[in-house]
Amino acid sequence: MEIEQEIQPLLTEGSVANYIPALAKVEPHQFAMTLTLFDGTTYSVGCSETKFSIQSISKVFSFTKSLSLYGKKIYERVGKEPSGNAFNSLVQLEYENGIPRNPFINAGAIAVTDSLYSYYKNEDDTFNHILQFIKDTSNNFELDYNDEVWKSEYECGYRNISLANLMKSFDNFENEIDPVIKTYFKQCSIEMNTFELSRAMLFLANHGVDPITQKRFVTQSQAKRINAIMLTCGHYDASGEFAFHVGLPGKSGVGGGIVAIVPDVMSISVFSPGLNSWGNSLVGTKALELFTTKTSHSIF
Amino acid sequence: MEIEQEIQPLLTEGSVANYIPALAKVEPHQFAMTLTLFDGTTYSVGCSETKFSIQSISKVFSFTKSLSLYGKKIYERVGKEPSGNAFNSLVQLEYENGIPRNPFINAGAIAVTDSLYSYYKNEDDTFNHILQFIKDTSNNFELDYNDEVWKSEYECGYRNISLANLMKSFDNFENEIDPVIKTYFKQCSIEMNTFELSRAMLFLANHGVDPITQKRFVTQSQAKRINAIMLTCGHYDASGEFAFHVGLPGKSGVGGGIVAIVPDVMSISVFSPGLNSWGNSLVGTKALELFTTKTSHSIF
Amino acid sequence: MEIEQEIQPLLTEGSVANYIPALAKVEPHQFAMTLTLFDGTTYSVGCSETKFSIQSISKVFSFTKSLSLYGKKIYERVGKEPSGNAFNSLVQLEYENGIPRNPFINAGAIAVTDSLYSYYKNEDDTFNHILQFIKDTSNNFELDYNDEVWKSEYECGYRNISLANLMKSFDNFENEIDPVIKTYFKQCSIEMNTFELSRAMLFLANHGVDPITQKRFVTQSQAKRINAIMLTCGHYDASGEFAFHVGLPGKSGVGGGIVAIVPDVMSISVFSPGLNSWGNSLVGTKALELFTTKTSHSIF
Amino acid sequence: MEIEQEIQPLLTEGSVANYIPALAKVEPHQFAMTLTLFDGTTYSVGCSETKFSIQSISKVFSFTKSLSLYGKKIYERVGKEPSGNAFNSLVQLEYENGIPRNPFINAGAIAVTDSLYSYYKNEDDTFNHILQFIKDTSNNFELDYNDEVWKSEYECGYRNISLANLMKSFDNFENEIDPVIKTYFKQCSIEMNTFELSRAMLFLANHGVDPITQKRFVTQSQAKRINAIMLTCGHYDASGEFAFHVGLPGKSGVGGGIVAIVPDVMSISVFSPGLNSWGNSLVGTKALELFTTKTSHSIF
Repeated sequence: MEIEQEIQPLLTEGSVANYIPALAKVEPHQFAMTLTLFDGTTYSVGCSETKFSIQSISKVFSFTKSLSLYGKKIYERVGKEPSGNAFNSLVQLEYENGIPRNPFINAGAIAVTDSLYSYYKNEDDTFNHILQFIKDTSNNFELDYNDEVWKSEYECGYRNISLANLMKSFDNFENEIDPVIKTYFKQCSIEMNTFELSRAMLFLANHGVDPITQKRFVTQSQAKRINAIMLTCGHYDASGEFAFHVGLPGKSGVGGGIVAIVPDVMSISVFSPGLNSWGNSLVGTKALELFTTKTSHSIF
Repeated sequence: MEIEQEIQPLLTEGSVANYIPALAKVEPHQFAMTLTLFDGTTYSVGCSETKFSIQSISKVFSFTKSLSLYGKKIYERVGKEPSGNAFNSLVQLEYENGIPRNPFINAGAIAVTDSLYSYYKNEDDTFNHILQFIKDTSNNFELDYNDEVWKSEYECGYRNISLANLMKSFDNFENEIDPVIKTYFKQCSIEMNTFELSRAMLFLANHGVDPITQKRFVTQSQAKRINAIMLTCGHYDASGEFAFHVGLPGKSGVGGGIVAIVPDVMSISVFSPGLNSWGNSLVGTKALELFTTKTSHSIF
Repeated sequence: MEIEQEIQPLLTEGSVANYIPALAKVEPHQFAMTLTLFDGTTYSVGCSETKFSIQSISKVFSFTKSLSLYGKKIYERVGKEPSGNAFNSLVQLEYENGIPRNPFINAGAIAVTDSLYSYYKNEDDTFNHILQFIKDTSNNFELDYNDEVWKSEYECGYRNISLANLMKSFDNFENEIDPVIKTYFKQCSIEMNTFELSRAMLFLANHGVDPITQKRFVTQSQAKRINAIMLTCGHYDASGEFAFHVGLPGKSGVGGGIVAIVPDVMSISVFSPGLNSWGNSLVGTKALELFTTKTSHSIF
Repeated sequence: MEIEQEIQPLLTEGSVANYIPALAKVEPHQFAMTLTLFDGTTYSVGCSETKFSIQSISKVFSFTKSLSLYGKKIYERVGKEPSGNAFNSLVQLEYENGIPRNPFINAGAIAVTDSLYSYYKNEDDTFNHILQFIKDTSNNFELDYNDEVWKSEYECGYRNISLANLMKSFDNFENEIDPVIKTYFKQCSIEMNTFELSRAMLFLANHGVDPITQKRFVTQSQAKRINAIMLTCGHYDASGEFAFHVGLPGKSGVGGGIVAIVPDVMSISVFSPGLNSWGNSLVGTKALELFTTKTSHSIF
């Protein structure tokens, strides 16, 4: 595949996330990419069997789950607009009275996990339902999380705990903070490969229904909303950059994974742990850009 | 047309922009919508001959012009990311050292007009080239601006002048402030109807080339960039909302106009002067939402 | 005493702190005032035997203790300038990389308590040394804290916990957060009456030496620093107001107490639980103003 | 005089204000200090005849004049609390709806000059009344301003113009911006020596009355207020530092001058153009510190 060749020189340029000790050990020069079509056909290059931490990509799953449970009520707790601030900023959260701008910045994702905790009532059940949801969407029941990774993040997760406490001071947090934060870090440590991730997001390319199993996960309108938020807020402070270069709704994680959807056609996942200065996979972004350029699959 | 009927009850809900005296006098219950296809076919409903102030929609034209003149160098002066703050906020501009977040917030658009002024050297030439560019893209050489409207805005334009001076204090403003600000307000006061506006934006639906005259205005990559910025930043603090409800790259103005493009297919313009709480045409947004829902033309 | 009569009509105007349940129950129409001279003479009016939560006044004692242990090194962790923001704002703390503006806003006081915890190594010892220091300065060994009050504050102390976590994320927090926060709330719940409080602060009116026992608590320079910070930062966002109306270095607490010092002459404490809109004792501030006006003891 | 000797080694350490071209040319290693007592006795060392730009010290005179004309009504337009932000920040001004924190940050001083302009109706009369007021307080009718200096500042005064426009957008600016800004820069360019400055501020050490001429300029309460604001806000973001080191109400200017008052005793002015990192005279601050230490004239 041409893309794999073109990205080779870039594999040495990014740097792995070093603020999470367990992630800092990942071998940086890896690359994988998988396309999954509506009929189940997949095309993969690179190490598409290698598992990695999905990290912030998990925010798409937890938000989808919460949206399916609460519907529009969830917007009382989290907004739908781009933030224009760093992913973990407290400033905007304070000025906007504890309501995070969108579910893909950390504060928003933590509020979403808190909403799921309110539904399932305890740490294990909440996490298991999130994991089960990802298993369901990926039609793969072997998935698991990484105990070392989430504990490593939890141990230095002071800023996320600060965000949770600030929301709680504004009455936008319903449960004990500690178990919710643990659940949040656990969901971030779930490990998948590009094969599984592209499979799991296919329902968002098909208006909420898995095109292979015909199982509906969210309504058509909810799927549209999730895609719109991925497009405008999916890549922290480089969301506009991603919209331009790739032009597809997508979500990245500091583990080096990115998932993107081509509406009505397919789902794509890439993995390469070297990150650019915005915290998104450097090679992954480039690979997706080459893909949309070569195939004219951009939404623009 | 169904859409026209469905939006009737909403015509009394919005309120016209009242901070600009000359705009506060506009009759609020108007509606128009025009579609322009690549072969020149147009479909219109409502008062599609009625001219209105294009206001912030002019930012798309001035940015396009500047991008065609300066290429990527323009990004040294204005960013490409959503702002997450009010369209006229000084806070982010101060924290980010005088570089506006994107060309569609006021500070960014003023910086763009300043860049054009640096090129054309005086107020009349700068404004005339902006106007000429809009005439060229709309293939309509009768367009003009409204003297009463721009003077009305200029007289109460203190916040925009404050933004310009703040940028100048950060060395991100190259000319005398007063003539640039006048040029900026003049471009906002240009009057068009939905027929003309949809025609003028057609090149952005066709990768930078007017599909009727085959005239190229910007490169394919530049057109993609403009569309990406319209999608993520085109509607102030309701850009995410617009991406969801309408799902098309677009730009609104407080005069009640909105223009949106369906990539590879058509350009659409709507007009209805009643605004929602974010300053976007209430009925116009709804009409575009109905259009994309009924025709499945959303990019998602 | 004239002051007592003049403040009578004001006793119904303030309102007790209602964000701390245990404090909301205090009878609001109380008043007490005590002056302590260098020879030990005291003058009291009102309920000068009634104990109240010293709350933020405790910040003066903990900062004094920390300054005596660490000297200028403490300024690496906490500044000395007025904040111009609400007493519990996270915004400035984030913009200034986790270094609180001064030791009398909450973040600063928590950092100070953390510094004491680093010295004494555990919760009990740290708290006991703070309490012992207050006993020493007041020459009164019966003082204690209120278990109900500190637990009540701890249970809704999310914003303070948020501040602590934010500082920790900036490496400006050295210990486990929970025991430090508990120690902080305990010190705030220490109960004293105006007689005891005015006695305890006498050393700050005498360049660091208790004029009665001749015991030195801090150096002359440190005492000057503490007084300067009390004058510029002692009353949250009404420090300028207090400097004008009272014109003495002082510190207030939401429990309704205020302590102020007349350099080289005396220490004064007032108590009245009704607070003004800035969170300072309404009648207490007025009583001090009347005192300085009648006696010309203002520093201006 | 001992102080003069002790500060000699420091004369090479500061750096003159370089953002104002006309000030950047001042010879940096100068020093002067003058004390003026209530009976008119003066003590001077150094170049006490050398004139310098009083710059921000002029804010004390304009505020005093405005307070004498408007009384408490002026506080509807400008606050009385420390700002905790840089002297020319727009952020706080935007968050606090165009009301500057105090009359000694730039925005506040510009609002004060605007209030005087509203009273005197034109540029010449407004400036002349400010100058006359300084002549009256200094009992010296030869004072003048420096045409080169104010024009130099005016030419790069974008941030101040930005502040003025922002206030105007919040309806906290009553006149044309340009003539008010010119008046403001002219008042900053007034030239005085330490002999004249210490004489001019004597009324603030004597409750509003010049102790030599017995002329009253403001009420006792107003004088107390001015002194309180000088103490808490007189030195930008180093006001707490100055309160500690010097412990007197004072005001500095980037021209290298500082004036301070010892209530009931004297007025002091120092001059040395080398500035420390906060924009205050490095040697001047040190000289005042030595003075208060040696004479125990600190208010603490």
